Amino acid sequence: MISVRDAIEITLANTPRQKTIETEFTRCIGAVLAEDIVSDIDMPPFDRSMMDGYALASDDALLGAARLQVVGFIPAGSYPKFKLQPGQAAKIMTGAPLPEGADAVREVEKVRLHDQGRVVEILEPVKPGLNVVPRGAEVQAGEPVLAAGTYIQAPIIGLLAATGKVNVKIYRPPNIAILATGDELVDPHIKPMPGQIRNSNSFQLQALCTRLGLNSTILGVAKDDKNALRFQVVQGLKYDVLLMTGGVSMGDLDLVQDVLKDLGVKLFYQKVAIKPGKPTVFGKIGERLVFALPGNPVSSATVFEVIVRPALRKMMGYPVYQNPQVTAILTEYFANKSQRENYHPSVCWYEDGQFFCRPLETRGSGDIASFARSNAYLICPIDRTEMFENERVQVLLREDFYLT
Amino acid sequence: MISVRDAIEITLANTPRQKTIETEFTRCIGAVLAEDIVSDIDMPPFDRSMMDGYALASDDALLGAARLQVVGFIPAGSYPKFKLQPGQAAKIMTGAPLPEGADAVREVEKVRLHDQGRVVEILEPVKPGLNVVPRGAEVQAGEPVLAAGTYIQAPIIGLLAATGKVNVKIYRPPNIAILATGDELVDPHIKPMPGQIRNSNSFQLQALCTRLGLNSTILGVAKDDKNALRFQVVQGLKYDVLLMTGGVSMGDLDLVQDVLKDLGVKLFYQKVAIKPGKPTVFGKIGERLVFALPGNPVSSATVFEVIVRPALRKMMGYPVYQNPQVTAILTEYFANKSQRENYHPSVCWYEDGQFFCRPLETRGSGDIASFARSNAYLICPIDRTEMFENERVQVLLREDFYLT
Repeated sequence: MISVRDAIEITLANTPRQKTIETEFTRCIGAVLAEDIVSDIDMPPFDRSMMDGYALASDDALLGAARLQVVGFIPAGSYPKFKLQPGQAAKIMTGAPLPEGADAVREVEKVRLHDQGRVVEILEPVKPGLNVVPRGAEVQAGEPVLAAGTYIQAPIIGLLAATGKVNVKIYRPPNIAILATGDELVDPHIKPMPGQIRNSNSFQLQALCTRLGLNSTILGVAKDDKNALRFQVVQGLKYDVLLMTGGVSMGDLDLVQDVLKDLGVKLFYQKVAIKPGKPTVFGKIGERLVFALPGNPVSSATVFEVIVRPALRKMMGYPVYQNPQVTAILTEYFANKSQRENYHPSVCWYEDGQFFCRPLETRGSGDIASFARSNAYLICPIDRTEMFENERVQVLLREDFYLT
Repeated sequence: MISVRDAIEITLANTPRQKTIETEFTRCIGAVLAEDIVSDIDMPPFDRSMMDGYALASDDALLGAARLQVVGFIPAGSYPKFKLQPGQAAKIMTGAPLPEGADAVREVEKVRLHDQGRVVEILEPVKPGLNVVPRGAEVQAGEPVLAAGTYIQAPIIGLLAATGKVNVKIYRPPNIAILATGDELVDPHIKPMPGQIRNSNSFQLQALCTRLGLNSTILGVAKDDKNALRFQVVQGLKYDVLLMTGGVSMGDLDLVQDVLKDLGVKLFYQKVAIKPGKPTVFGKIGERLVFALPGNPVSSATVFEVIVRPALRKMMGYPVYQNPQVTAILTEYFANKSQRENYHPSVCWYEDGQFFCRPLETRGSGDIASFARSNAYLICPIDRTEMFENERVQVLLREDFYLT
């Protein structure tokens, strides 16, 4: 049995980053850049007004107290087709390009209008460049704007569009196969007979992958029979990652491990000192990864969160592998009899500048109704048998924790 | 001009929750339940062992010190086909069902084995029910397990599977149309000529919708011409929500507002005291919403975050509308000359139990290269012209803030 920290480290050390592919930029949200991005244009592409006001030549109003003829209006998003002559000005909006002949903008609050807006009186002195962002001041054509390794959030999709980068190299998101094992499993639409339970693991894992932006294929349920299992595992090993559930805590019947070893999968560990989730197997064949998770849905989801998610994020090229851990005030006493690092389903919330964590009551690690109400895990270290009310504790947040 | 708070309140007050639809449960991740979910089975569906150990009749070991014949082995996920007779026990794993005739489990640490495991010596007294979760203890058949209004995260997909709820009533996610306006806009693959800029807004907004789990359709670019715009807006009003960008800060040319009014859209506000994003329009026709956002991509993304996202989340039935706001330590001086509530692009991070916020340097609100490096907004109230290093400030986190 290895520690949680070792399991994560061994997993990440054996997890390769994915190869790159070139993809249309609108399909890249949630992926990671695999190349530096260079702008093909200056930003802004013109001298841009920072204010609503009047564009003018500063020469005309270096000392203020000038009266200029208003010869045009430039809304944001238009381009002036006229040129300012000495003694002329143009009404201009924030974000609009200066007309030729202008080098400054006097904001609307510091002018007075005459002759029904045909003449503008500039009330204060104007220096060259006043209230103007010069062309190329933010980014110059040929300059890098984004570095490889950047997580592609929505503003970056906007920046790719603005820089004309319509095909982008990203780390190819891994494809995932999901395989449940167990004679007792039936599909969700079937009412279980005594001794049967519904397969919920496959769908929960698929949902976790979906929220990570990953496509997954459910391969169905393999029976507890070596040949049947072997056939299904062979299908699963055609994917970048195979996630299996069940069949790893069978005690004397280590069916899954046997099949994986027979197929040449190198196994790195088979037990982790985590509660829930002790019987967790990690293996690799070529560049493909296999995780064999416990059959208990709370356990498999927890191990996904703590060990599998970081590996998938590393494959995707992410700069950060795990969901955030925060320090929270524990709202009640917690006992840890497991002699393992305990990830206990909890409710975490943020109030008055502080996180709070309330561990949920469960009856053993199979209580999926209680688990479904949690949004975080209280992390109780292996050497702690108790944690106390008002203690500051570490909490692993689940994705979307604030929505639940 | 109305305050940000009023804009949010007016928007939400006029935003209807979507009608419900029934959907296959695997497609519900990220949606919201529109019905209570009742389990059709007991959970657990059998008396379940909480420990690795030996299942037995407590009558046989009420005082401990019993020797029992081991007649079988029950791994998790199997169902025992035998029945215990007095004087018999069965090896059992955590999560496995007790065999008939057993009512307790003595954990493996408190037994001694003899005769190569064929006989188990129980070392301590055993009470009825010891280490057993009785059938139905978590949920009884017919009991509600999930309430309408619950956000569907991955564990809930698992719980739906486990309770056989394969078709689920959810609030139908709204479909979105995205329409950019402006003669100056060209598509991202085109190199802009002087006076042109690339349309980045549409793609940024689409990415924001995608991360919210919403489908959106880009309707292209409408020219600054009343008939052209009207034609496109009519198409956009066939969707639940129409997001427009540009054409709202044209000063004397309120093209967008005019077209919306002509088409019978009721406008609730046309200016908000927010920086960036002042020229923001919100309207409604029937049950359909229209947001006309500024043409500046930083402004439109910011208004999406502060005003549009809460409305979309309300339509989807979410219990929480906005991304989390946290209290952070400001790492440097910040000036707010805007006389508006300022949402300034910032980098926020969590360290030693505390959030920190560093406002990014920008040159006006058009600096999309700087904006792309942000992961949060510093919120500077309308009545504050300065904020100071080490001050505790409010920060609005963007989705996935910890990944950037």
